[in-house]
Amino acid sequence: MTILGDLLSTIFERRYLTAALDKPDARSMEELISALVGATGEVSGLSAANHILKRYREMNDEEKLAFFRHLSSDMNIDPDKVRSALEAYEADPSKQSYRAFMSSVEPDRQELIRRLNQIPGATEALVQMRADLLRLGRGDPRLQALDQDFRHLFLSWFNRGFLVLRPISWESPAHILEKIIAYESVHEIASWEDLRRRLVPGDRRCFAFFHPTMPDEPLIFVEVALTSAVPGSIQDLLAEDREALAADEARTAAFYSISNCQPGLAGISFGNSLIKQVAADLATELPALKTFVTLSPIPELTNWLKSEDILFEDADAKQIRTLAAHYLMSAKRPDGLPLDPVARFHLGNGAMIHAVHAEADLSPKGQAQSAGAMVNYLYDLPKVAQNHERFATAKEITASSEIRGLDAAAKKLDLRRSESEPVAN
Amino acid sequence: MTILGDLLSTIFERRYLTAALDKPDARSMEELISALVGATGEVSGLSAANHILKRYREMNDEEKLAFFRHLSSDMNIDPDKVRSALEAYEADPSKQSYRAFMSSVEPDRQELIRRLNQIPGATEALVQMRADLLRLGRGDPRLQALDQDFRHLFLSWFNRGFLVLRPISWESPAHILEKIIAYESVHEIASWEDLRRRLVPGDRRCFAFFHPTMPDEPLIFVEVALTSAVPGSIQDLLAEDREALAADEARTAAFYSISNCQPGLAGISFGNSLIKQVAADLATELPALKTFVTLSPIPELTNWLKSEDILFEDADAKQIRTLAAHYLMSAKRPDGLPLDPVARFHLGNGAMIHAVHAEADLSPKGQAQSAGAMVNYLYDLPKVAQNHERFATAKEITASSEIRGLDAAAKKLDLRRSESEPVAN
Amino acid sequence: MTILGDLLSTIFERRYLTAALDKPDARSMEELISALVGATGEVSGLSAANHILKRYREMNDEEKLAFFRHLSSDMNIDPDKVRSALEAYEADPSKQSYRAFMSSVEPDRQELIRRLNQIPGATEALVQMRADLLRLGRGDPRLQALDQDFRHLFLSWFNRGFLVLRPISWESPAHILEKIIAYESVHEIASWEDLRRRLVPGDRRCFAFFHPTMPDEPLIFVEVALTSAVPGSIQDLLAEDREALAADEARTAAFYSISNCQPGLAGISFGNSLIKQVAADLATELPALKTFVTLSPIPELTNWLKSEDILFEDADAKQIRTLAAHYLMSAKRPDGLPLDPVARFHLGNGAMIHAVHAEADLSPKGQAQSAGAMVNYLYDLPKVAQNHERFATAKEITASSEIRGLDAAAKKLDLRRSESEPVAN
Amino acid sequence: MTILGDLLSTIFERRYLTAALDKPDARSMEELISALVGATGEVSGLSAANHILKRYREMNDEEKLAFFRHLSSDMNIDPDKVRSALEAYEADPSKQSYRAFMSSVEPDRQELIRRLNQIPGATEALVQMRADLLRLGRGDPRLQALDQDFRHLFLSWFNRGFLVLRPISWESPAHILEKIIAYESVHEIASWEDLRRRLVPGDRRCFAFFHPTMPDEPLIFVEVALTSAVPGSIQDLLAEDREALAADEARTAAFYSISNCQPGLAGISFGNSLIKQVAADLATELPALKTFVTLSPIPELTNWLKSEDILFEDADAKQIRTLAAHYLMSAKRPDGLPLDPVARFHLGNGAMIHAVHAEADLSPKGQAQSAGAMVNYLYDLPKVAQNHERFATAKEITASSEIRGLDAAAKKLDLRRSESEPVAN
Repeated sequence: MTILGDLLSTIFERRYLTAALDKPDARSMEELISALVGATGEVSGLSAANHILKRYREMNDEEKLAFFRHLSSDMNIDPDKVRSALEAYEADPSKQSYRAFMSSVEPDRQELIRRLNQIPGATEALVQMRADLLRLGRGDPRLQALDQDFRHLFLSWFNRGFLVLRPISWESPAHILEKIIAYESVHEIASWEDLRRRLVPGDRRCFAFFHPTMPDEPLIFVEVALTSAVPGSIQDLLAEDREALAADEARTAAFYSISNCQPGLAGISFGNSLIKQVAADLATELPALKTFVTLSPIPELTNWLKSEDILFEDADAKQIRTLAAHYLMSAKRPDGLPLDPVARFHLGNGAMIHAVHAEADLSPKGQAQSAGAMVNYLYDLPKVAQNHERFATAKEITASSEIRGLDAAAKKLDLRRSESEPVAN
Repeated sequence: MTILGDLLSTIFERRYLTAALDKPDARSMEELISALVGATGEVSGLSAANHILKRYREMNDEEKLAFFRHLSSDMNIDPDKVRSALEAYEADPSKQSYRAFMSSVEPDRQELIRRLNQIPGATEALVQMRADLLRLGRGDPRLQALDQDFRHLFLSWFNRGFLVLRPISWESPAHILEKIIAYESVHEIASWEDLRRRLVPGDRRCFAFFHPTMPDEPLIFVEVALTSAVPGSIQDLLAEDREALAADEARTAAFYSISNCQPGLAGISFGNSLIKQVAADLATELPALKTFVTLSPIPELTNWLKSEDILFEDADAKQIRTLAAHYLMSAKRPDGLPLDPVARFHLGNGAMIHAVHAEADLSPKGQAQSAGAMVNYLYDLPKVAQNHERFATAKEITASSEIRGLDAAAKKLDLRRSESEPVAN
Repeated sequence: MTILGDLLSTIFERRYLTAALDKPDARSMEELISALVGATGEVSGLSAANHILKRYREMNDEEKLAFFRHLSSDMNIDPDKVRSALEAYEADPSKQSYRAFMSSVEPDRQELIRRLNQIPGATEALVQMRADLLRLGRGDPRLQALDQDFRHLFLSWFNRGFLVLRPISWESPAHILEKIIAYESVHEIASWEDLRRRLVPGDRRCFAFFHPTMPDEPLIFVEVALTSAVPGSIQDLLAEDREALAADEARTAAFYSISNCQPGLAGISFGNSLIKQVAADLATELPALKTFVTLSPIPELTNWLKSEDILFEDADAKQIRTLAAHYLMSAKRPDGLPLDPVARFHLGNGAMIHAVHAEADLSPKGQAQSAGAMVNYLYDLPKVAQNHERFATAKEITASSEIRGLDAAAKKLDLRRSESEPVAN
Repeated sequence: MTILGDLLSTIFERRYLTAALDKPDARSMEELISALVGATGEVSGLSAANHILKRYREMNDEEKLAFFRHLSSDMNIDPDKVRSALEAYEADPSKQSYRAFMSSVEPDRQELIRRLNQIPGATEALVQMRADLLRLGRGDPRLQALDQDFRHLFLSWFNRGFLVLRPISWESPAHILEKIIAYESVHEIASWEDLRRRLVPGDRRCFAFFHPTMPDEPLIFVEVALTSAVPGSIQDLLAEDREALAADEARTAAFYSISNCQPGLAGISFGNSLIKQVAADLATELPALKTFVTLSPIPELTNWLKSEDILFEDADAKQIRTLAAHYLMSAKRPDGLPLDPVARFHLGNGAMIHAVHAEADLSPKGQAQSAGAMVNYLYDLPKVAQNHERFATAKEITASSEIRGLDAAAKKLDLRRSESEPVAN
């Protein structure tokens, strides 16, 4: 996973810092925090940081809440200081006055988090800390504000330019693969054997983003099937007895699962980059690939149908496709964006709605969330920028004529449950 | 230097983005900047970022100054927005109001720099950009203020926890070694043969910090000699015909050269961490090592002696040592810290002044700056925290009794040049 | 130095040679063989070698037998040529006459095998070929003679100095780990979860030997448990709910499973080296380790007891231990070496019999082969050479006094089944 | 799969065996040899092997000669044993009788060399030992016979399938690069700067073969220039101020230097494979490459001209080309093969003579050996097998019509020095 020098130094540092932890430290958490933020050098700082992270790991939820509340209330900005620093800067803009202003608007807790991160391995611990904060801080505006400080720093640390794309294969280390099994959130991986089927055949690929300081933790990964034509059902794609296609005979790369791995990185978006880079990688490796497309769930379809009182339980395949196309094209949030979160993601990336399929996901989950329907979003690379622009500025959805036709047909019907007739054919 | 996957993806990305650059872009630099900062997705952003960096590389100094002035004046904070966002936050602290406040206090140019950094390889380009800014912005308060934004982001990106310590040896890649030759700034490396003598013998070590996104660029490096006793002269240490010591017979690790490599990272301090980690690494590898010490220049000694009108041209070895000890202990800046920058660095790290040597650096540079004197700073690991604390809070310098004795002796003398007598023996 | 280069060149070669295979070759197998052995350059040789290996892979057992018979009869030495070359050499020993002699005594099939091995990846194919030969050639003296040529070449190719010891851990690639699961032949690994339990805990280790040309195929591997005391039962060692020991608190390294992976390398012994190198590695990593010991099966115990008409079905623990000690110490082959193959292996390596345990392997296999008994062989490093010497020259078995006592006690008893009394307490 | 494991185990083994060497061993060299060959296990063997290699390293030439004479006379085959083993095998061919025969024809010194090679790092030492033997054994038929045993084993160990092709670049480790500088034997590399010019430009490549057990020692390397057209002069190719070509604009790969690095591997041919594999690699990387050609010295040209009393000192460019073509086509050894060793090598590989150039190597060496002439051998991949075949069977040289024309023209002239006229135009 990494080179000798790196490993040796990391091994060393862990030992070194672990040794320091053996000596108990009588200071309270607040004293440690204050020592770390106030430290003028690294000397005492690293030790304090180390103790803070160690104690945090051992806290229960209540203690964690207290810790977050301390950060939120006692390490916040001081509005009066901000105001006077701002005035001084306005009066005489200079290195000194600007630096003083920058310092006044940054709460001490940001410096705290930054200093905690000086410990090797701390980034992972801080990502975990933010996951706790998101979970525990629900409904508490001050803790949600505190979360903005984590987010702000994470946006710098997890800058796209720092991420590394790595293929995940059957030759990857087992401790990475067991995380892929655990983190897969779209189509569950039931066993090592199941994972093997998704990695070993020549027409299967998997890629993940990693951050250099978390080499053992994938941030996000995507599973790809190389196919002849655009696939219309997940059970065909994952059939145990299917025959593999020779990679160089494939014409289509189908992204059939994208999973975020780190709840603590919520709101730090990688998926867009991942899809585009993987598409570009595959296009280079396999020049015969012409089509880059997803096979995606429609997670909110049945919920929406129910909320709209639309009958669908007895709908046939064509009816389901009509309803799905209609939902994707026309069901909107108050802000005018699509109701469906997966649609928002891919359309926001510049993809277009290419096709919908009935009986495409026969798993209990698929039946429950979308009556078995799935959708292909197409990444037509030359048009991605333009699609994105239209969607971002005018909230306009690009779709194939077939999808537009299905949506138009649906609009002509009266779909309400109160009607005696089911949806038309 | 790195693993297959990383290399492949980097190779790919470079090709991908290079291809994009082939298409000319008619937009002006300001339009590109505005497109990048305003981009709602990555789609158009990456291309704009790429063009901005490419054009920047081709600019002359005058154009660069115009570019920096644009950032400084047109992408600055808006004080009125800050004030109203602050009031809104005070009135109702919440995720939204805090986020709005954070956004108001961060000038758009920070977001610009962050987005530029999404391009692979951009970090190095941005470090170079800051080196330009530091050079061109001297004396211009607004450009110095702009530099604070680079510094702020670099402090996050080059967080200690992200750095990787790597041994530099004769087995390191030649393209790294030629940079070591180029960047050595204390005792010049005259040739590959000279470098070989500093790397190959069993009693020599070299270590550098690297950042994961700049794998070919050392940030700082230190050269170490393993010796029996504390060394007293650089010419002995680097003698061409010396006999190497078996590493496991060494009792002392002497840090005889530390060089910062990147002018664009001025003010982002790594030296402290480097020394301590290297000391700890060596202590693990060679348990017989007992003493960690520097052999350091005294860069401002003769300047100070001249400014104080102290006669030293005809001083003998003992007199030179007396003067050097006195200077290091007693020559202070207005803020009470030592005048000598190397002393400030090591004392600030928690080292103590251990010994001074005359005729220790007979090179023209050594003669000119310190009349040939050098100094050992001792890193006594168990006392480093305490030394640091005293220095940081009380500006108190820790020194050996010998050094204190020399300083005391010097104080009793009248050293002024106006005196007819030279310094006493 | 870089695996990248290696990988790329290997990838390339495979493509290059695969391409060549696409063109069908009308020559018969014998013609191809003759072309390969007769080739004066590599040009046509590589292509012939490639076709031979490809055709071999597609053969059924009957065709393989024909292939081996061709090698055995048509590519054998010519006794008359040997005699005349020998005489010429005796008459005038020189480079030429000796070379002619060497050439006469080496059958063409050795050159054939050597030339086949010029294809990348061929070593693995040839190891597989020999596995076929050993299987198909049973009872056929000429095919067994042919096997000696494979063995002769493999002894050079798999020379100890060419083998690489690698730790196998949960960070090893999955395609290696699945082979560990498949090849474990002592205590079956039931699942990935079971494997995880043998690799992840801090008190577990696994090491394998690899050959540089077969990087994905372990040759032999050993599983090690770090323990406080010498372990007396495999079920305790592998208990699912046991608590792991901190590695640096361990005093004993227990080798509890050694598996040969390649039937085609039968008779090319690696186990001796493996144990000693692993012991030395562990001693370096964990200086507190004092005892290196196996926990080994006694595969032929019950067979021997039955053949000797000794009653053991109702024996208690002490009786079983007595019988086991007696068997290990006193049951011999006609050549005077111990009957037990595992004993022959470890005693031949210089180990001594340290202790025997009843109820130590309660698995069906353990019950069947040794009535649940197991044995510890102790590798007392300072005495290993001397033990080995005694065993190799005088067939003398070194054992602890306890084992010798048990054996002596057994000899005093009449153990035959014809006796009305069971073995004594 | 990971170099870490490999490195660690190697480091370990070196320490382990080095430790053993600290204990002096009173046995004589002959006793050690006898102990090693007679060892029934590895236990005492490794230690004896280690001591033998260590003592050998410290021997002077006289002692080495004595060592080789011992191997040659006391560890030779026993003709009577060979005869009786042969008879036994003829009478009853079986595994046992064949094994006994194989054992009788293999002198003990082969087993000695094989066992010496069990020590890590021994391969390199044995290659060095053979270099000594070749040097010291000149003119001694028995020592030349002994060399055949080394050669026999090296042919197995350095089997083509075990070699690894690695690109050599400016990113290669310095300790490898300094060997490239030292081993270059065709066009001297004068300095690191000179090496840099041969590696860094985008139109330069270098590749070497390595053996897995000698990772720091290139066996043979080739330097390649990517050019538009077939190059006609080495000074143009290596000009300091030349402008580099973009690699993808090159149409020709010119192999302008091939150097064997290990005198101890004389007669173990790698050059053929190297050229073909590099050609294939480059063809894959740069599909626009159409021509694979050498720019080669003509080392024996002037010697031959002198021996034939042909006037050439005042010859003009065309005359020189005529003489060079004539020499390459028509100057033969008694066995009918070309006199020129470089010609024998490339023609034997299946290359053809493409063109000759005057004033192509203006260095003192080039002037002295070939009056400045050089030659291009063309590797026309589709015709290589056929060219090789013709050359190997009929000693027929393939050449361009231009070369054949020049040779024909030369034959019509009377070239002897006794003539009053110089060679014709």
